[in-house]
Amino acid sequence: MISVGEACARILDGLRPTPAETVSLAEAAGRTTAAPVFARLTQPPADVSAMDGYALRAGDGAEGAVLSVIGSAPAGHPFAGSLGPGEALRIFTGSIIPDGADAILLQEDAEARDGRVVVRETVTAGRHIRRAGQDFRAGEEVIPAGRRLTARDIGLAAAANHPWLAVHRRPRVLLLATGDEIALPGEPIPPGGIVSSNAHALAALVRAAGGAPCILPVAADHPSAFAAVAEAAKGADMLVTTGGASVGEHDLVQSALGERGLAVDFWKIAMRPGKPLMHGRLGEVPVLGLPGNPVSTLVCAVLFLTPALARLCGRPDEAPATIPARLGAPVAANDHRADFLRGTLAADDAGGLVATAFPRQDSAMLRLLARADALILRPPHAPALPEGASVQVIRLDLLGV
Amino acid sequence: MISVGEACARILDGLRPTPAETVSLAEAAGRTTAAPVFARLTQPPADVSAMDGYALRAGDGAEGAVLSVIGSAPAGHPFAGSLGPGEALRIFTGSIIPDGADAILLQEDAEARDGRVVVRETVTAGRHIRRAGQDFRAGEEVIPAGRRLTARDIGLAAAANHPWLAVHRRPRVLLLATGDEIALPGEPIPPGGIVSSNAHALAALVRAAGGAPCILPVAADHPSAFAAVAEAAKGADMLVTTGGASVGEHDLVQSALGERGLAVDFWKIAMRPGKPLMHGRLGEVPVLGLPGNPVSTLVCAVLFLTPALARLCGRPDEAPATIPARLGAPVAANDHRADFLRGTLAADDAGGLVATAFPRQDSAMLRLLARADALILRPPHAPALPEGASVQVIRLDLLGV
Repeated sequence: MISVGEACARILDGLRPTPAETVSLAEAAGRTTAAPVFARLTQPPADVSAMDGYALRAGDGAEGAVLSVIGSAPAGHPFAGSLGPGEALRIFTGSIIPDGADAILLQEDAEARDGRVVVRETVTAGRHIRRAGQDFRAGEEVIPAGRRLTARDIGLAAAANHPWLAVHRRPRVLLLATGDEIALPGEPIPPGGIVSSNAHALAALVRAAGGAPCILPVAADHPSAFAAVAEAAKGADMLVTTGGASVGEHDLVQSALGERGLAVDFWKIAMRPGKPLMHGRLGEVPVLGLPGNPVSTLVCAVLFLTPALARLCGRPDEAPATIPARLGAPVAANDHRADFLRGTLAADDAGGLVATAFPRQDSAMLRLLARADALILRPPHAPALPEGASVQVIRLDLLGV
Repeated sequence: MISVGEACARILDGLRPTPAETVSLAEAAGRTTAAPVFARLTQPPADVSAMDGYALRAGDGAEGAVLSVIGSAPAGHPFAGSLGPGEALRIFTGSIIPDGADAILLQEDAEARDGRVVVRETVTAGRHIRRAGQDFRAGEEVIPAGRRLTARDIGLAAAANHPWLAVHRRPRVLLLATGDEIALPGEPIPPGGIVSSNAHALAALVRAAGGAPCILPVAADHPSAFAAVAEAAKGADMLVTTGGASVGEHDLVQSALGERGLAVDFWKIAMRPGKPLMHGRLGEVPVLGLPGNPVSTLVCAVLFLTPALARLCGRPDEAPATIPARLGAPVAANDHRADFLRGTLAADDAGGLVATAFPRQDSAMLRLLARADALILRPPHAPALPEGASVQVIRLDLLGV
């Protein structure tokens, strides 16, 4: 049995980011940049006003001065001429400062009358002026490669004048649930059978992580059911199987796909829930064999599939972020397997997180997993810990799981 | 001017959740349940084994006993008969415990030979047996109404045998950018103009919050440009405008839409960035008028549009969650406007969050906003605070913004 960390490293080691594709800005949110985004223009393009008011020469802006208003220049309608001594130009937020002006008289400090304006508060040169390029200059990198684009990034890419962006193609992830005992929701359930929940939960997880899932028909526990799988896997970026439990987890997947060229890297891992995790390669396609148990499947998916998808999508953040928290209740000593306790999170008054493990941790309790906020990490041989002790947790909400 | 809290309350007050629609389980992730989900079956359906091994009578399971193996019952292939004294049944994780059995001999504690099995470790009655209904029972609520479905919820709904789910229809949000000075990315930019970034950033934000955005053509700063808007708004769940800055923010939107029936509720709010925020109603359609400045637009969208979408989607979590953090650098005293400083987050060793405001907070710096992890809340008239002081923050990553 190998450690969780080694397993993760070996899984990631065989993965490369997908190639780039061009998508429209409107489709790019949630995608990962395949190249840095460089500004195609300077923003603001010229010195502009940060406020509504009047542009003038600072030397003309002493309290009590009366200036001649030579025109008005709304944003998008720059003043053509230049501003001379004793003159003021009506301007608005975003208006370009005219040649000759170097100060702004705020609207609330101005009194307009008969084509003139009276200064009611002495101006300061340069104040309330946004300099050309304050946000970014043409040619500057505004978004790095390998960033998952947020709504804010979309705004930034738009402002930098990009209608199209180069992003990594969504990794195609095949999902194969196996087992005689499982039926799809709404279909007839065989005697002693259960409803298949893994494939659709994993599909949602894959989508949330930026991948394109493809759910294969359920494979019964018989080698012939796997005949089509090797064919279907061609061109996929990853094949993820779940279950095979009825003849010993993964034995069937390994033997059935082994005949079709599966090379197994490892298949036992020192963790709970989810001990029987298989990793290998079917021809060119990386294969991740998850346990059939829904809780084990999802916990293993958080730990191994989520970082695998990040790698395939071209993101550098490969392992799910662990963050510190304090225990809200004691935990028992751990054995030789890394344990991932399901629990809730709350905030304490000091800004810290309090993580409390559910009293029951049976790996068949999907309802409890759905109510969990976090996985609480218990390393191999970790001692019993009292309430208040420090632990590391993985927040499930941050992963879109 | 009204406070941020009052503005939010008044915006939400006019919103009702959208009606329900039926979607397939495969499409339901990220949607919000319009009704509780009740289990359609009991899980596990009967007492099942939690391990691979043998089912037997506890009284027969003393160390050294030799039992007759009467068959094998993989998961999905329950044993038809009942188990008698001195008998054992080969079973696997998920196998139904046969009538007559009340204990599990683990595989690693068993020695199989010639149709018999030798007990190498005395069994305990009931141990390693998952009781029928341990996860949930038919008729129990497994997912409440008003929950945004995660990948785990999808698995749970599947396990509870739901191929379809009732969710709130995605709220239709019209996005209208206004201004003579703006051009769409890649299109010719007028003199003194800038590239429109708000509509596409807001569309990504609306999608991330569960809504269906519709971007209207840019409206120039002229009343006639608004003629089509009132028509387009019919049937929308919300109309969101940005800008109108060239003639004083929102004056144009208010006057142009006012002729078409816009009833303004309020349009000034004591906050920074984003003072000129307008709220009203165009016929039946709620209208939110955001500032034209991209940073102000997005900050106001986080504060007002995100909770509005949560309300329209049927989620009870109406205000963006504020969480405590400690300052990584001092902040100045605040004036009478609530301020939302852009900054970074880091974790300290004790599990607390450290929030550090960017030194420059100019509301035209979209690049800085894109790099921010959080908004740091500064209430009206808040005093200057030193490094280490407690503040409330809104995490942007949790909002998918």
